[in-house]
Amino acid sequence: MRDEAINLGRKLATFAQHWSPRVVAEMNNYQFKLVKMQGEFVWHSHEDTDEVFLVLHGEMEIGFRDRGVTVREGEMYVIPRGVEHITRASAECHALIIEPRGVVNTGDTGGELTAANDVWA
Amino acid sequence: MRDEAINLGRKLATFAQHWSPRVVAEMNNYQFKLVKMQGEFVWHSHEDTDEVFLVLHGEMEIGFRDRGVTVREGEMYVIPRGVEHITRASAECHALIIEPRGVVNTGDTGGELTAANDVWA
Repeated sequence: MRDEAINLGRKLATFAQHWSPRVVAEMNNYQFKLVKMQGEFVWHSHEDTDEVFLVLHGEMEIGFRDRGVTVREGEMYVIPRGVEHITRASAECHALIIEPRGVVNTGDTGGELTAANDVWA
Repeated sequence: MRDEAINLGRKLATFAQHWSPRVVAEMNNYQFKLVKMQGEFVWHSHEDTDEVFLVLHGEMEIGFRDRGVTVREGEMYVIPRGVEHITRASAECHALIIEPRGVVNTGDTGGELTAANDVWA
């Protein structure tokens, strides 16, 4: 059991790379991952799980094929399983992702933005 | 699928009661619940699941039988399953709880602080 709380700001200060989630905690078989985003990610979906984004700094857009949802600091959004989406941030945005252990950032799409999994901050 | 993000500040403004978690989102079989805390809760544990507190405003203490951990705004803590704990806040503290649907706030202890489950903000 940890002796101290997990300080998200201090964990964010340990890395700079965009689109490269870093695990900060596990709860049962779920992981909490910090991510820094800027620019546009790739269209993808996760067939087996919902995915949560909670924005800690800045704002992001979660694009769906028929519309987009803006998620600002202090807001969260649940992307339903199997729904194709893309994430975008015109300025750097920091978010906490919550999803089961093992989920790959690019889902079923793959490609060069696919990040190493289970990398801890 | 929701048209808008979930604004945690606006959801917090919809209730005042202490120790009475309000669900704001679901991810698979997990729930995200807002809670306002002030004073001292009751000793309890959750035999079947870890439990996450992410502090949004103020600070709280998570007490264990052998020590306490302070969790401040922007920090989170994972309480391991089966570990007896108590939550305290000398001034009002707001937090986001993440845990499986169906978890009762007083765990295996019960009593008058047991809140109705699955109440949405």
